[in-house]
Amino acid sequence: MTVSESTLRTFAKNIFLAIGCNAEHATLTADVLLKADLRGIDSHGVARLSGYVRLWEKKRINANPDIKIVHETATTATIDGDAGLGLVVAPFAMKLAIKKAEQYGSGWVAVRNSNHFGIAGYHALMAVEKDMIGYALTNASPLVAPTFSNERLLGTNPICYAFPAGKYPPLIVDMATSAAANGKLEIAQRKGIDVPEGWLQDKQGNTVTDPHALKSGGSLLPLGSDREHGSHKGFGLSATVDILSGVLPGAGFGPWVPPFVAFLDPLPNPPGQGIGHFVGAMRVDGFRPAEEFKADMDIWIERFKAAERINPDQPIIIPGEPELEAEHERKLNGIPLVDAVVNDLNELAERFGVERLA
Amino acid sequence: MTVSESTLRTFAKNIFLAIGCNAEHATLTADVLLKADLRGIDSHGVARLSGYVRLWEKKRINANPDIKIVHETATTATIDGDAGLGLVVAPFAMKLAIKKAEQYGSGWVAVRNSNHFGIAGYHALMAVEKDMIGYALTNASPLVAPTFSNERLLGTNPICYAFPAGKYPPLIVDMATSAAANGKLEIAQRKGIDVPEGWLQDKQGNTVTDPHALKSGGSLLPLGSDREHGSHKGFGLSATVDILSGVLPGAGFGPWVPPFVAFLDPLPNPPGQGIGHFVGAMRVDGFRPAEEFKADMDIWIERFKAAERINPDQPIIIPGEPELEAEHERKLNGIPLVDAVVNDLNELAERFGVERLA
Repeated sequence: MTVSESTLRTFAKNIFLAIGCNAEHATLTADVLLKADLRGIDSHGVARLSGYVRLWEKKRINANPDIKIVHETATTATIDGDAGLGLVVAPFAMKLAIKKAEQYGSGWVAVRNSNHFGIAGYHALMAVEKDMIGYALTNASPLVAPTFSNERLLGTNPICYAFPAGKYPPLIVDMATSAAANGKLEIAQRKGIDVPEGWLQDKQGNTVTDPHALKSGGSLLPLGSDREHGSHKGFGLSATVDILSGVLPGAGFGPWVPPFVAFLDPLPNPPGQGIGHFVGAMRVDGFRPAEEFKADMDIWIERFKAAERINPDQPIIIPGEPELEAEHERKLNGIPLVDAVVNDLNELAERFGVERLA
Repeated sequence: MTVSESTLRTFAKNIFLAIGCNAEHATLTADVLLKADLRGIDSHGVARLSGYVRLWEKKRINANPDIKIVHETATTATIDGDAGLGLVVAPFAMKLAIKKAEQYGSGWVAVRNSNHFGIAGYHALMAVEKDMIGYALTNASPLVAPTFSNERLLGTNPICYAFPAGKYPPLIVDMATSAAANGKLEIAQRKGIDVPEGWLQDKQGNTVTDPHALKSGGSLLPLGSDREHGSHKGFGLSATVDILSGVLPGAGFGPWVPPFVAFLDPLPNPPGQGIGHFVGAMRVDGFRPAEEFKADMDIWIERFKAAERINPDQPIIIPGEPELEAEHERKLNGIPLVDAVVNDLNELAERFGVERLA
């Protein structure tokens, strides 16, 4: 089924209203989810709506959080998200980072006691709209093993950098620090196909191609896949995300990051609270007139687009380009949803008395 | 030959004095190079001394730079390195970042018109000594091809994050954003062995294992090696480094980054000046009392050290641990140098009337 942006936006907003979010928060959460659906990152859009609802049922998500700044300097702060939706808490944090950047050139906000924040790109792009460089990180449910280990101690811990350009759209690097994101496994599971070697290992640490391997104690591999190909670098990047997002604000980290799935309980006695994020904004004109920077970004983009191709039919892809193409296309033609997601959403609709998807 | 730290430090300092650096700069440059040699990153230590000298001969390195702040806000700045040694310019930039962080919580400095800055870890660790989180990036001579391309448009563009810990040494992620650093190819060349698939491609874009492939127009591959294993992420990270280090300050970027080897001339009409760096510092206590953060860093390190091992004899390695072990060992027992490097250094010694290595 293909659903228009506005229908899906209203649907998501109504569900968030139904669990008790205020109108402003419900509008915002729907906007964050829709941004993922529009940009083709289907694993992070409305497909997660029922997951958020289940965490709310378990009282692990607070629909009316009292988000507070608990520590602050001119350009840094730590926020306590009061167990709110990361979809609300992270934009709050980014707004604060932007405000600090407006005044002092840069702003950096770490967040504890939050929940899953959707796509990192949403938050980083808030800065780009103000001619700033945006940065967004989050830790996540442990699914990834460090190099040489078969234990799930890290999330797919994404890193996002977003840069404004001139005549071209912003350049956005938004990537899981694992070899493959969890969403790629879900696609293979649905299609009933194997995944490439180098994405997963089983409980014993053998490389496997079964996309269901996580269910039997397997783990995702860090970017680089194995030591010889630099998995220690993927591990290092993931560790960086965990430390900035988790250790720095006093959130959960490593194995203590609360799982997204409501049927798994968080580990007892965590060293910190909830999921953690880290966001930042730097004014481009803190370094150089913004127009000069953007003109050079255009040169960068043009030069890389024009790079020699190995296969003449396979163009070079600038980071963020496929997502932008999806956004144009889906704004026009609607968002395709697989049956499982439609059923899931319609169950929510019945339960909360919200209009079903046709 | 194994040479003591102090002998090699004096040697390097004397060469820098001989090309006209002042005493303060010569001491600093020697310190940056020695840090690499001590930490086992042999490709970035005194092995590069003759390379710096050749660039100075070509007048591409200015031994007496007038390093200037050309743009500034409370927490951001751009520096013009006046074609100085990156070994001098980058510490200048990091000192400024630290000063801003002391006052405002964080400081971020982009650098243009510089040269190779040695190991990124040296600069990031300057922040750690002040209980700050350190960040250091640099772009570099183009050797890496973007995903789907066979053209060398990016350097091995390293990323370094350094975090203070409590009873443990700092955690340092210092990594090339290519699948393998250039130094690894040099080791394979010396040993006369092939390198793993996934590090290199030839001029046509075929994966090859010949460590000499760069000499015949081949290129290094981004971290992730191929699209299926996430090379677009390695490309995205490398692009981020190039934009923050190159585009942001108005330095060279992409193919216009000047080559380290003096026998290759820089491309004509570059859009910016020289090599670029980007460094930053954030006060830990801008987010949380430093003692609390460091105690949690110790928990993080202990938990990851204790991760289940795939092979009982292969411990989990915390980022920065091997370099620290090398530093302890080499401070005690001296720095091993291969014959080619000893000969190279002794040629410099004769030329500049400096005492030879015994």
